[in-house]
Amino acid sequence: MNPIELPVVERIMGANDDLALRNRQTFDAHHVHALNVMSSPGAGKTTLIIRTAQALRSLRSMAVIEGDIASSVDTEKVRAAGVPAIQINTGGNCHLDAAQVQKALGELSLEGVDLLFIENVGNLICPVAFDLGEHTRVALASVPEGDDKPLKYPGIYTAVDALVITKTDLLPWVPFDLSEFRRLVRSLNPRIRLFEVSCVTGMGLDEWAQWLVELTIRECKAPWAETRQIR
Amino acid sequence: MNPIELPVVERIMGANDDLALRNRQTFDAHHVHALNVMSSPGAGKTTLIIRTAQALRSLRSMAVIEGDIASSVDTEKVRAAGVPAIQINTGGNCHLDAAQVQKALGELSLEGVDLLFIENVGNLICPVAFDLGEHTRVALASVPEGDDKPLKYPGIYTAVDALVITKTDLLPWVPFDLSEFRRLVRSLNPRIRLFEVSCVTGMGLDEWAQWLVELTIRECKAPWAETRQIR
Repeated sequence: MNPIELPVVERIMGANDDLALRNRQTFDAHHVHALNVMSSPGAGKTTLIIRTAQALRSLRSMAVIEGDIASSVDTEKVRAAGVPAIQINTGGNCHLDAAQVQKALGELSLEGVDLLFIENVGNLICPVAFDLGEHTRVALASVPEGDDKPLKYPGIYTAVDALVITKTDLLPWVPFDLSEFRRLVRSLNPRIRLFEVSCVTGMGLDEWAQWLVELTIRECKAPWAETRQIR
Repeated sequence: MNPIELPVVERIMGANDDLALRNRQTFDAHHVHALNVMSSPGAGKTTLIIRTAQALRSLRSMAVIEGDIASSVDTEKVRAAGVPAIQINTGGNCHLDAAQVQKALGELSLEGVDLLFIENVGNLICPVAFDLGEHTRVALASVPEGDDKPLKYPGIYTAVDALVITKTDLLPWVPFDLSEFRRLVRSLNPRIRLFEVSCVTGMGLDEWAQWLVELTIRECKAPWAETRQIR
């Protein structure tokens, strides 16, 4: 449903924006930098979050809110990796909204947390319309999905601050023109930050982790920002 | 948005169902068997449709309605393969609806067409709620998306008649437990018809094409059904 078509939906979106603002105030009060992580199903959001936590272990403290229609498999994986995580099950809904995140925050301690990853429902379309209160929006695009996705789903590419191209270890096995893909993405969003990673080989994870550390320093200006050094 | 939450949305769904019935009557009047093809973005819907047209070329006549948020890249690919195709661009909308299909039918000749593939917007969630008038619903699940998707997106697995597991040529390179995946899918939908295909190697395409031919014989009972022989 296009959110701008119906007055009743406009009211829902307005209420969502009010709650998103409150969530952002909660994050800021705790010096937490929040990221809304979006992609198609199976692009590797949970795996990237777990590998990021491993890369940042001695540098930054992380927590995760996991959004799924059903099950808690992702939350179990994240917790098994030693990262605090809370599951949101949306029922049939195709995206997270600010009210669901607010509820999850009631069950998740933000004390000492530097980075909060909110893993949205796997969907390239609907999550983009809902502000959750995040500071930064990140999309993932996995190599086996193909390099034509910016043409077909332009909305998400214009709406995010960064794009992580995942599963680059599969480049030898699938048709994917990396330079053409980069060109398409940049034509939609010239300011987007692009990363290329493989969570299998570890390639590209250092650059991504370094950017996340810089985000917490630049955006939060928390008192501890200068006291922790990047390895 | 959960379609059952709002009276205004309930009315929209009722209007959709009325139009879907009219589409189905149009298909039946032309002895066309219509399939609604759904999956995540990049699971290989268009490629499967093109390879299916090649496999069925001397047996059945096909046409395609392509649903995308933007662009006509898929329609161009299908037409280049010699199959009549019409593009629907949904704007920002996350699914096809019966009205869009009705409009497309005004521009697409169904004369002599046996099978109409309606390729939905790449989305595992929202398209399931909208009847387009199809006779058969097919989902695709690509191997690189991972084998846990039935746990996280159960709705689509219960809503379809058949599931095509695509990109099986990537099985050596990604973690995907085929027997566990089959078990999960069958626990959600014991009557589902399962296919495993690779459009790169051609593996599994014959069985899939054979099933489509049987669909047109069984469901349509068209006068020509007995006169064309399967190779």
